[in-house]
Amino acid sequence: MQKGAVLVLSGPSGAGKSTIIQASSSEIGEYYFSISTTTRLPREGEKNGVDYFFVTKEHFEEDIKAGHFLEYAQVHGNYYGTSLVPVREALEAGKLVIFDIDVQGHRLVRAKMADIITSAFITPPTLQSLKERLNARSTDNQEIIQERLENAKEEIKAVNEYDFIIVNNTVEEATKRFVTIAKAARLKQSDKDNENFIEHWLSEK
Amino acid sequence: MQKGAVLVLSGPSGAGKSTIIQASSSEIGEYYFSISTTTRLPREGEKNGVDYFFVTKEHFEEDIKAGHFLEYAQVHGNYYGTSLVPVREALEAGKLVIFDIDVQGHRLVRAKMADIITSAFITPPTLQSLKERLNARSTDNQEIIQERLENAKEEIKAVNEYDFIIVNNTVEEATKRFVTIAKAARLKQSDKDNENFIEHWLSEK
Repeated sequence: MQKGAVLVLSGPSGAGKSTIIQASSSEIGEYYFSISTTTRLPREGEKNGVDYFFVTKEHFEEDIKAGHFLEYAQVHGNYYGTSLVPVREALEAGKLVIFDIDVQGHRLVRAKMADIITSAFITPPTLQSLKERLNARSTDNQEIIQERLENAKEEIKAVNEYDFIIVNNTVEEATKRFVTIAKAARLKQSDKDNENFIEHWLSEK
Repeated sequence: MQKGAVLVLSGPSGAGKSTIIQASSSEIGEYYFSISTTTRLPREGEKNGVDYFFVTKEHFEEDIKAGHFLEYAQVHGNYYGTSLVPVREALEAGKLVIFDIDVQGHRLVRAKMADIITSAFITPPTLQSLKERLNARSTDNQEIIQERLENAKEEIKAVNEYDFIIVNNTVEEATKRFVTIAKAARLKQSDKDNENFIEHWLSEK
């Protein structure tokens, strides 16, 4: 009776989300990592189909009209969204679907999939440590770093909306926590499956 | 910043809850198993301070007045309740507090501790298998078995109120699931701890 489940990860860019997912991947079993679609231009080093699906504004707006998005939002004039079809397919195949989306996206996905969602907010221990990480990876210019820090200050206020918070003091400890959370996330039952179970249980003589 | 957390287990008597907790105990770290207080008489083999704290009706009603219960209810003319003090102490010591309580108790505890609660409903796969288990352990007479089966049919309807359902097909599989859920339960943060974290994060220059 076990079908798929959803794990939403949020947290500031630079919190270490990708590193933690990668470090966990051998331990958490088969999962589908949902790739967002965006109308913003690729930054240096970003690859289509890996970091995002990069599409035109026209394309995105047609997909909105066609009802192709599980969630979408406009940020700084650019669209960001999650396509419904691959998520639905992965869930039907019983996979754990992992989303790396922002606070706003988490709210929208939770509203639609409340019964099968688990969510975790990953954050560096301090604002100072986030600043250091962003400077160290040197993929962003100062303007983008400043924007990321401002975003982080806003997003951190939503921590209480998440099931779990992972403070990334060390990658080892954070990965351990993430593995535990991902394994538990996979055990979430959909309300519909539960209702089938109840019905079957009660139909017995 | 990690304080204690709460794991509520419910499910029909005979579902295998005690067996699963015992089989998990070496893997889930230190926990406090909350023992309920009741005014019903001990059944054969039940021990005071192990299965329940057995007290008089007068004693129980004084404790209600004094506000000593986290939750309590009257079932078939007997009181059942959870004392507040040992739970609070265990939480302050950072322990995982495990409750074996019914559907009604789960609702009351969830209402008071929503932010740090994880709950799981443990059930045999079928009503028939529950009947066989109850008959096999031969600690209950037919009247009590019938009462337990009727209760089980009522309780199973509340499965959707729980975070997880553990269908006890085999003790090994059910125990594995329980260990995962208990480890994740321990990672739940209280809203208060989160708010301290947010405040600290935002106070940085």
